[in-house]
Amino acid sequence: MAHYLPRTEDQLFILNQVLRAQEQLQPLAAFGEFDSDLQSQVLEEAARFVGEVVAPLNEAGDRIGCTFADGTVTTPPGFRDAYRAFHEAGWPALACATEDGGQGLPWFLEGVLYEWLSAANHGWTMAPGLLHGAYECLKHHGSDELKQRYLARIASGEWLATMCLTEPHAGSDLGLARTRGTPQADGSWRLDGSKIFISGGEHDLTENIVHLVLARAPDAPAGPKGLSLFLVPKWLDGGVRNGAFCDRIEEKMGLHGSATCAMRFENATGWLIGEAGRGLAAMFVMMNAARLHVALQGLGLLDAAWQKADAYARERRQMRVPGPRDASEAADPIEGHPAMRRILDTQRAWVDGGRVLAYQTALELDIARHHPDAQRRATAASWCALVTPVLKAAFTQQAFLGGSECLQVFGGHGYVREWGIEQHVRDSRVTMIYEGTNEIQAIDLLVRKVLPDAGHAMAAMLDRLRETLDTGRASGRAAADAIDQLQRTTQALCAAPTAQPRLPYEAADDYLRAATLALMAWAWARIDTASSQPRWQAPVAAAFLRVLPELRMRCAIVEQQCAGAEVMA
Amino acid sequence: MAHYLPRTEDQLFILNQVLRAQEQLQPLAAFGEFDSDLQSQVLEEAARFVGEVVAPLNEAGDRIGCTFADGTVTTPPGFRDAYRAFHEAGWPALACATEDGGQGLPWFLEGVLYEWLSAANHGWTMAPGLLHGAYECLKHHGSDELKQRYLARIASGEWLATMCLTEPHAGSDLGLARTRGTPQADGSWRLDGSKIFISGGEHDLTENIVHLVLARAPDAPAGPKGLSLFLVPKWLDGGVRNGAFCDRIEEKMGLHGSATCAMRFENATGWLIGEAGRGLAAMFVMMNAARLHVALQGLGLLDAAWQKADAYARERRQMRVPGPRDASEAADPIEGHPAMRRILDTQRAWVDGGRVLAYQTALELDIARHHPDAQRRATAASWCALVTPVLKAAFTQQAFLGGSECLQVFGGHGYVREWGIEQHVRDSRVTMIYEGTNEIQAIDLLVRKVLPDAGHAMAAMLDRLRETLDTGRASGRAAADAIDQLQRTTQALCAAPTAQPRLPYEAADDYLRAATLALMAWAWARIDTASSQPRWQAPVAAAFLRVLPELRMRCAIVEQQCAGAEVMA
Repeated sequence: MAHYLPRTEDQLFILNQVLRAQEQLQPLAAFGEFDSDLQSQVLEEAARFVGEVVAPLNEAGDRIGCTFADGTVTTPPGFRDAYRAFHEAGWPALACATEDGGQGLPWFLEGVLYEWLSAANHGWTMAPGLLHGAYECLKHHGSDELKQRYLARIASGEWLATMCLTEPHAGSDLGLARTRGTPQADGSWRLDGSKIFISGGEHDLTENIVHLVLARAPDAPAGPKGLSLFLVPKWLDGGVRNGAFCDRIEEKMGLHGSATCAMRFENATGWLIGEAGRGLAAMFVMMNAARLHVALQGLGLLDAAWQKADAYARERRQMRVPGPRDASEAADPIEGHPAMRRILDTQRAWVDGGRVLAYQTALELDIARHHPDAQRRATAASWCALVTPVLKAAFTQQAFLGGSECLQVFGGHGYVREWGIEQHVRDSRVTMIYEGTNEIQAIDLLVRKVLPDAGHAMAAMLDRLRETLDTGRASGRAAADAIDQLQRTTQALCAAPTAQPRLPYEAADDYLRAATLALMAWAWARIDTASSQPRWQAPVAAAFLRVLPELRMRCAIVEQQCAGAEVMA
Repeated sequence: MAHYLPRTEDQLFILNQVLRAQEQLQPLAAFGEFDSDLQSQVLEEAARFVGEVVAPLNEAGDRIGCTFADGTVTTPPGFRDAYRAFHEAGWPALACATEDGGQGLPWFLEGVLYEWLSAANHGWTMAPGLLHGAYECLKHHGSDELKQRYLARIASGEWLATMCLTEPHAGSDLGLARTRGTPQADGSWRLDGSKIFISGGEHDLTENIVHLVLARAPDAPAGPKGLSLFLVPKWLDGGVRNGAFCDRIEEKMGLHGSATCAMRFENATGWLIGEAGRGLAAMFVMMNAARLHVALQGLGLLDAAWQKADAYARERRQMRVPGPRDASEAADPIEGHPAMRRILDTQRAWVDGGRVLAYQTALELDIARHHPDAQRRATAASWCALVTPVLKAAFTQQAFLGGSECLQVFGGHGYVREWGIEQHVRDSRVTMIYEGTNEIQAIDLLVRKVLPDAGHAMAAMLDRLRETLDTGRASGRAAADAIDQLQRTTQALCAAPTAQPRLPYEAADDYLRAATLALMAWAWARIDTASSQPRWQAPVAAAFLRVLPELRMRCAIVEQQCAGAEVMA
């Protein structure tokens, strides 16, 4: 089974030719020493690490998986050594501030790194996947004393971190959480309760594990406003074992390389992060970045599935293709069969266009933090707020559905473990659920972000996108039409009677899908403008023909609901 | 974990109220004693057997699976006893002719039975799944001597059967098969070669196993016309072990309850079925029924996934629903949330409408065999030829995609094994591949069945469907529109220049999808006409609003290709 191999030239084309990343970051003093040479160097190094160290462990990560015995978790063969090498090479600190021991590089590089890591080995990548979010959370909300003890170690990845949110009865609805935090005389808190679905709640990769735990103070109100965030380490100073225990790990559909732990906090010592009752706010500081992370996982998994399918389709010969053919063989490579070509081209288009959108969003995250112009920081923050839920939902879904299409290229061989393609399908499925289900993303987009300002921010962002299109080209005109269509549907939703409280929730999924396709049309048009090579043109052409038409359908469904039309009436 | 429970009243509504199955079969002398009482009795008995005997074995079938050691396969706990009970109760012979020891009942009852069996335990159901096809194949093509020795035992299920087609380098392209058949002096043949992906190639369920093996005689031409079909038993008369060996079983994504065997035929004794060089024709006699079988598997798996999701959504409370709510609770059952309601209603609509189509197709199979009027037999055969590939592709895809939607209802709990929903997603995936990949189904429909007669048979079938619609109702008008749309697209394809040999292959998948939606619109309209109950109305309304609009999109994509339009030009 061939391992995933990062293809740096694809990233460089998108960053340099399509997005002109260097130009965008040029005004940011924070990255004054960052140039395209350094960018290439970091990406080449990252690609080598991913391809040589992490990718080869993926198959055993699935087959052997994490194992649980007597409260401890053993990670699959090689995972520990790979993590040590990752830590020692400084990868976790890539985008952390230099004053915290980080390398102070733009976050978008970490985005590319994690896309590749996820493509190569989703299970292994879960371990460091929360580090940067925990770092940001602690950096912005932790007390000086907490930061003194934990921040540098989390930045460097010396200790790994978890997010302990979900409880058996409280999933999407964290406000129902019951874990209790009780203040102690010394300023610490005592934590008691049960958490489930805790990725990396226990493992053998690092000496200590730092849990960020959502819990409720004794006098706290019911619901989400009663929740506070606590830092609870596995080991306290002086080698004292804290009361944070793993009771079991889940048997899952996939992602066997990552231990999904049921955690029991029993008389555990912790410290408040930020203000009491503001726990969700402290978590949300890392939410957009974390959701973009998950979108990049989806992109990576889809690219990995595509890479396998593409290689197989070039080798496997079955039947003759319609039209001209090689008479010296009894059958043609299946990549020439239209049904297989369609799968390969459309999934390639999802990856290519998705990278344009995701990397631009990563750049906007850097811009939102570091641009000297407050107005530009605001538009960047608005971009991230609007596009992140779209990317999270769209690319986790596409990882699963497109991964399944790639599996189809293998025929029966895709269903057996041997080729590794079915693992991508199983692994990817969870990304549609965690970090906010895709249905939650749709509600986040429409109900929390588009409707409250009557679609103003969305309209402004789409206007900016339209300005960057070359409408002298058919692709630019098609993308402009797509953006107009989304604008009209947005307006229809904003104008709908507020007497229909269910309407935005009924329409949210179709609206997010429409937004996905309009944004992708923009991305595809940008690629079309940037390169005339078949490598980039063929997927874009397939996307405009076969993928984009869904936009009109989704908009029509939403508008029909807005009109209050009963189709059966 | 709750087991699958057949809901007989759903089937009876569709058979009696929507399709009026009894009236349709009334002219068929073969089923003179078959009436609605007997129908209910058979279905009640079948439901009980499925729910009590087969369904409870599904979880262990996945978790423990089939195991292989020293050339033998051990089936999961309970499988053997359940199969013995199935055989002893006479279920395999339900639709076999009375002169072969069968019960002589209509085939559509077997269709319902196998839908339920697949819903309850896909892995177990693979074992008897090929019996009826093998029975038909042997009955129509076997010599009297072969029939004398094997037919009754296959009819009764005393011995199970396999289809040995695929070879490592010959999947969709069976013409590349290399297994050799060498004639012997006594009229038997010697078989040598390797076959893969042989479901039930080895097991402990029955004393003997009868393999139907596609192989090539020494003087046979290359390609599919050189293939002959042979009957090769595991045990020869007198307890002599034949040279048909299982070398390994595959590690698969799912369907662990069914052993997928790599078979080695080494100096094996077999007998020709039908004429030499006509092996594929002999297999094709069972092809439509086998593909309908697979469509019913998809339907069953989707219904099983829906049943789990529906039960979970009624119990699980998270967040408040928009609009009126129960103030005594902190959260509402998620079935009231629009995003969950959408999933439950649309997937229910796929099952309900799919049953209408699939059961009608099963009835047409009975009519094609037994109706006194040759013209009616011909229209029935035409229905089966056209609709079967549509159903096979549509419902295997929907089992996987809709199963994944049902998994989503569980949130993170859907991704862990505990609830059993992820097993449906894993198990169902293979149905999109076996018995002809879904891409092959699309080619079969368009290239082999619609285009050769310039769309005449398709047009005639759609005309008949249109006549059964109540266009006094919105649903009937919507379905008539859908049928008209498909007609126009069919004509566009038939009128396209033959100078584009790739066009039909480029358009096949979208065309099959358009046909699916037009046929489903007909089915939903029929349901809408037959019942005003919310149980039936809510899914149909959701389908017309959210599912049917895809038809127009697919037709537009096909017509754009017909027009030779380059979207990017």
